[in-house]
Amino acid sequence: MVLRLPVHGDNRGWFKENWQREKMVALGLPDFGPVQNNVSYNLRAGATRGIHAEPWEKLVSISTGRIFGVWVDLREGDSFGALFTLELGPETSVFVPRGVGNAYQTLEDATTYSYLVNDHWSPQAREGYTFVNLADETLAIDWPLPLADADISAADLTHPPLTDVVPFRRPRT
Amino acid sequence: MVLRLPVHGDNRGWFKENWQREKMVALGLPDFGPVQNNVSYNLRAGATRGIHAEPWEKLVSISTGRIFGVWVDLREGDSFGALFTLELGPETSVFVPRGVGNAYQTLEDATTYSYLVNDHWSPQAREGYTFVNLADETLAIDWPLPLADADISAADLTHPPLTDVVPFRRPRT
Ligand SMILES: Cc1cn([C@H]2C[C@H](O)[C@@H](COP(=O)(O)OP(=O)(O)O[C@H]3O[C@@H](C)[C@H](O)[C@@H](O)[C@H]3O)O2)c(=O)[nH]c1=O
Ligand SMILES: Cc1cn([C@H]2C[C@H](O)[C@@H](COP(=O)(O)OP(=O)(O)O[C@H]3O[C@@H](C)[C@H](O)[C@@H](O)[C@H]3O)O2)c(=O)[nH]c1=O
Repeated sequence: MVLRLPVHGDNRGWFKENWQREKMVALGLPDFGPVQNNVSYNLRAGATRGIHAEPWEKLVSISTGRIFGVWVDLREGDSFGALFTLELGPETSVFVPRGVGNAYQTLEDATTYSYLVNDHWSPQAREGYTFVNLADETLAIDWPLPLADADISAADLTHPPLTDVVPFRRPRT
Repeated sequence: MVLRLPVHGDNRGWFKENWQREKMVALGLPDFGPVQNNVSYNLRAGATRGIHAEPWEKLVSISTGRIFGVWVDLREGDSFGALFTLELGPETSVFVPRGVGNAYQTLEDATTYSYLVNDHWSPQAREGYTFVNLADETLAIDWPLPLADADISAADLTHPPLTDVVPFRRPRT
């Protein structure tokens, strides 16, 4: 789900409601009950993170700069492997259901990415992640900066190709 | 309440848990139940906002840049008028109880201020605010940039001196 946010500019800069439960639920955003807010700051254009599908929901937004955002459906079913990309700045947010893979590449230096999630992360929680490689040949993502020139974490270089991914199944509760 | 946040730096930039309900509640943060996340972006060093006491709790943090943060107790009682100031960057957050006035001046260009609140803002909600002037002579706040040179909203120039403030009383529910 894509949200367009009013950004109120004035002499000081701007102000936005990044998440507003009542209004956004009325517009169709799930009442997802966030318990954690994470911020990642990226020094340079070309920083590339992902592709991570997590066992919780996420509302993704940009505080400064711009990203090329990438989402890949990794849930078991007919839409497995479906790709969605969108450029995001402070005026656009994306709600990501659990099991949908998430990645981004920054388009500007000093880009700040912020997200709310409805479960607590822990190092152990990584075992419930589903990963796919940024450079996967089936997805053939058209990264604005070639990955060879991008800032990537060591961990993100090790993720499997789509053909080796075990689809995400919502754990029974 | 002042929180010191781990900021994990790497080749891409950094990552932080800005709010983590479980861990922070265990450390003494009230389980305040945020329903809204606001972001304000400030173009220049010297942007100055406040002093606003709201009828809800706030967890204040910085995504980029630095601020000189100011809090003034405007609640009815012995601590009315008490002043607390602290420099905040991405590694420091402040939890602000309802009725405590909040203000800041940016110390760097491109400073991004982000906060979570546990009630929904509306233009009408402003009637429940308690305001005091940034330039109040009793408080005599030592602003890093003199207010005459600061970027301030028209509204923030109109707030009363401390001596004219009606102390905040928690409304009966
Ligand atoms: C995700 C996370 C990481 N960390 C720590 C672990 C590391 O020291 C540091 C960086 O973690 P990494 O997993 O390398 O961050 P990352 O930026 O590569 O991971 C992120 O990628 C995005 C594409 C996804 O949308 C996010 O949900 C998340 O998976 O932060 C936390 O403390 N809490 C958290 O919630
Ligand atoms: C506070 C708020 C403002 N707005 C709109 C109204 C205006 O068009 C624009 C800017 O509003 P202002 O009141 O001028 O923003 P401001 O930045 O001067 O107000 C802020 O000052 C900080 C010191 C306090 O900590 C904050 O709680 C808030 O009061 O944003 C919202 O849409 N939602 C909100 O929650």
